Amino acid sequence: MESQINPNPISFSRDTIVAVSTPPGTGGIAVIRVSGPEAVDIVGSVWRGVPMKNCESHTAHLGKIVDENGEVLDEVVATLFLAPNSYTGEDIIELSCHGSRWIQREIVNLLIRSGARSAGPGEFSQRAFINGRIDLAQAEGIVDLIASNSRAAQRLAMMQANGHFSRRLEELRNQLIDFASLLELELDFSEEDVEFADRLRLMELADRIIHEVDRLSASYSAGKAFKEGIPVVIAGQPNAGKSTLLNLLLEEEKAIVSDVPGTTRDIIEDTREIDGVLFRFIDTAGLRDTDDTVERIGIERATDRLLRSAIILWIVDSSADIPSQLDYIKEKQEEIRVKQGGNPDSQEISQANDEDSSSIIQHIIFNKIDACTEEIDNSQLPNQNSESIKLSDSQPIKLSATQSLGLDELLNILSADARSMQTSEGDIMVTNARHYESLIKGGAALRRARQLLSDNLSADFIAQDVREALHHLGEITGTITTSTLLHSIFSRFCIGK
Amino acid sequence: MESQINPNPISFSRDTIVAVSTPPGTGGIAVIRVSGPEAVDIVGSVWRGVPMKNCESHTAHLGKIVDENGEVLDEVVATLFLAPNSYTGEDIIELSCHGSRWIQREIVNLLIRSGARSAGPGEFSQRAFINGRIDLAQAEGIVDLIASNSRAAQRLAMMQANGHFSRRLEELRNQLIDFASLLELELDFSEEDVEFADRLRLMELADRIIHEVDRLSASYSAGKAFKEGIPVVIAGQPNAGKSTLLNLLLEEEKAIVSDVPGTTRDIIEDTREIDGVLFRFIDTAGLRDTDDTVERIGIERATDRLLRSAIILWIVDSSADIPSQLDYIKEKQEEIRVKQGGNPDSQEISQANDEDSSSIIQHIIFNKIDACTEEIDNSQLPNQNSESIKLSDSQPIKLSATQSLGLDELLNILSADARSMQTSEGDIMVTNARHYESLIKGGAALRRARQLLSDNLSADFIAQDVREALHHLGEITGTITTSTLLHSIFSRFCIGK
Repeated sequence: MESQINPNPISFSRDTIVAVSTPPGTGGIAVIRVSGPEAVDIVGSVWRGVPMKNCESHTAHLGKIVDENGEVLDEVVATLFLAPNSYTGEDIIELSCHGSRWIQREIVNLLIRSGARSAGPGEFSQRAFINGRIDLAQAEGIVDLIASNSRAAQRLAMMQANGHFSRRLEELRNQLIDFASLLELELDFSEEDVEFADRLRLMELADRIIHEVDRLSASYSAGKAFKEGIPVVIAGQPNAGKSTLLNLLLEEEKAIVSDVPGTTRDIIEDTREIDGVLFRFIDTAGLRDTDDTVERIGIERATDRLLRSAIILWIVDSSADIPSQLDYIKEKQEEIRVKQGGNPDSQEISQANDEDSSSIIQHIIFNKIDACTEEIDNSQLPNQNSESIKLSDSQPIKLSATQSLGLDELLNILSADARSMQTSEGDIMVTNARHYESLIKGGAALRRARQLLSDNLSADFIAQDVREALHHLGEITGTITTSTLLHSIFSRFCIGK
Repeated sequence: MESQINPNPISFSRDTIVAVSTPPGTGGIAVIRVSGPEAVDIVGSVWRGVPMKNCESHTAHLGKIVDENGEVLDEVVATLFLAPNSYTGEDIIELSCHGSRWIQREIVNLLIRSGARSAGPGEFSQRAFINGRIDLAQAEGIVDLIASNSRAAQRLAMMQANGHFSRRLEELRNQLIDFASLLELELDFSEEDVEFADRLRLMELADRIIHEVDRLSASYSAGKAFKEGIPVVIAGQPNAGKSTLLNLLLEEEKAIVSDVPGTTRDIIEDTREIDGVLFRFIDTAGLRDTDDTVERIGIERATDRLLRSAIILWIVDSSADIPSQLDYIKEKQEEIRVKQGGNPDSQEISQANDEDSSSIIQHIIFNKIDACTEEIDNSQLPNQNSESIKLSDSQPIKLSATQSLGLDELLNILSADARSMQTSEGDIMVTNARHYESLIKGGAALRRARQLLSDNLSADFIAQDVREALHHLGEITGTITTSTLLHSIFSRFCIGK
């Protein structure tokens, strides 16, 4: 990762840590990582091969790991990365050993007996942060990179891990520091009536920064969806063929399909990558009034998932009574609109982005078109301009889930939906709840400062809010940090990274 | 691994192969291994960093993996091992990437699109064999090393992987080649009546080789036990406390314990390492006559496991009728003796080692001594010299499984049993069924040759059996090999090794 200097005031233990860095389990090889000032000495003490002390950085050496009784534990390849040119910024030795669980454990235990300490989750990355090799947002990007499971998620994580996101925040912070300097200038010259001209300039600058902070925080809901999989809820009345469609989309028999209405009670979901984007498809219980308690809980949960979806696919059984199904969808849409008003999450988002509080993309799918005797008359179906049903597309999708008709069209539409959620190519999206929270708080502080400017209040008051905004933006990259925050971030890492 | 030259006639494809070599799953890092003549070119084509062509062997470099669209897939550390100084003997590049499953898969796919081929199981090791870096027995040692789960198993695997076992076999083969030369000498001078003196020398030599081959093949049953866990069967009448003892030995609640006799019906087993040796403890259904069909099947299986055990712990409930339990044990021991006679496995072993056909170590454990009102009188209990019950120790073990009394003594006894199964420290044991089979066949051929010598038959006939013995011993290290054999060996490897 490209380095960015974070002179960090928090002091940490400088002992030497060890952990298996490769996935747990048995494999051809496994890598044990040792980092710290004693790494060369500790590994050297159990090493039979060329003397570690004489090895140059970034070189690999074949040798044996030998225990206290002189017994060979394994033949390994040791690769040295000497400070400061290593991931942690300390001396690192990576031992590539045979991938037996027993051998991995025994070598780690031997190194611990020889003076190393077992590393906690993310402790290597934490040292990289402490030593100024990466900032906090980059560290979190590395966690996301390790967890990434689609091209889109990897791209967003990579932008964060390699410091793109941090540089954008640095620009914002620099603008805020300019802002603060201008405020100080005003304070210095407050006796001399230069105030008014500077206030206009300050308001302009505040608006620009607020706009950028808002743009970043508004990208969070989409960024989160790209990272975790875009939630697509398959909804509709019982027996419309929702489970069949889910199985078709997932290319496996995930949900039980039967002719009995109400077969699906649990929420069944799984992911699939389409054109590099991960979608999380969610099959829900059929939305009908029922006396069955279990089924009713299922329906309540389904409604809850509708609220939290990015895309809803409304499934209509073309071979059944269409108008009554459309009425049902209209009713459910109204229910979503009402409930969304009371959703604290969406409120928070709407703070930043008022116009688009209900940004769920909705499509209608006429299923079972193969079983439909008459041709469906497009003019009679709801479209984008229909007053009754709100949809994101002008034409309904015709599909036969059992015969895989119309599937390609549906996949293209979903892929286009994903593109429409993205901002411009290569642009930064916020994917981390912590960053989002800091941006929201920073934005709120800036709005207060902006208001005080408009109200023509003293620069002293304004400066306080600007400092708060700087603090919140600084939290993201770790310019401002606490050990509690560090703990909560690095404990999310796996051990060995 | 120390190299041993195997000029091998079988030709193999010389393309470049790729696989993830670390355990499957998500981790801090993962290692992707590329081996073959095009390794540097193929990795170089997706690499952004110092030019691969200019890098020296055994050096590590930070760089980026970039796909066809110029998008960065990951930042990686590439370590080069150039031919012939690599595991396979070919150019190898190991890419240490972030341990996301998605990233691992995408990098492998990118390398395949760039000209590499997905490696089959053990294909890297197979190339190491083909290129004379390791012999077959060493390759099998590496598989065992990766699977090893105790100090004893690792020690045996290491002896095989680093060529100790192969060198011993090479010595044997050299002695056999000497033997063959002497036979030829006899053939050359057959007209000149030198025969008699040489025959004596030949018989001596044959006996020495047979003795050594027998010693090796006799080590197999113990070697197998050390590799897979020494099978210890806990046997006794219902409700004697077998399951309680199992849980105590395994340090967890593995078996369901109840006062109802016949609670355990399935065979419950698990392993535990004691003093570096893995033991496989097996709890069996109580041995009693029963009308319950399920329980009866359980008892039959228990008897079967008794036959295949290395150690039997006979549990006696001290608080119940002791003489009837001892009678029962005597009966079971008789049953084992009878059934062992008809066991083809033990027959085969007894071919090599006649005296000790029933080599199961047996102990008697008086359980529930805490619940026993009277002191058990040692003189009344069976001992080593008792005519009734055959035991390996002179004193029965007194134990209270519920109160963990006597556990340390039992662990010491088991540890001593394991030592008694070992031949001298650092000595070679056969652990591989294939090697055992070859040794048995080689030994049989040698015995035939020895008989022909005694019968004073022509050297031509004898030479034929000696050649067969040479063939069988050669199979072990792969001096003699077929592609079917190679396939069956290397398919047991994991992918990436």
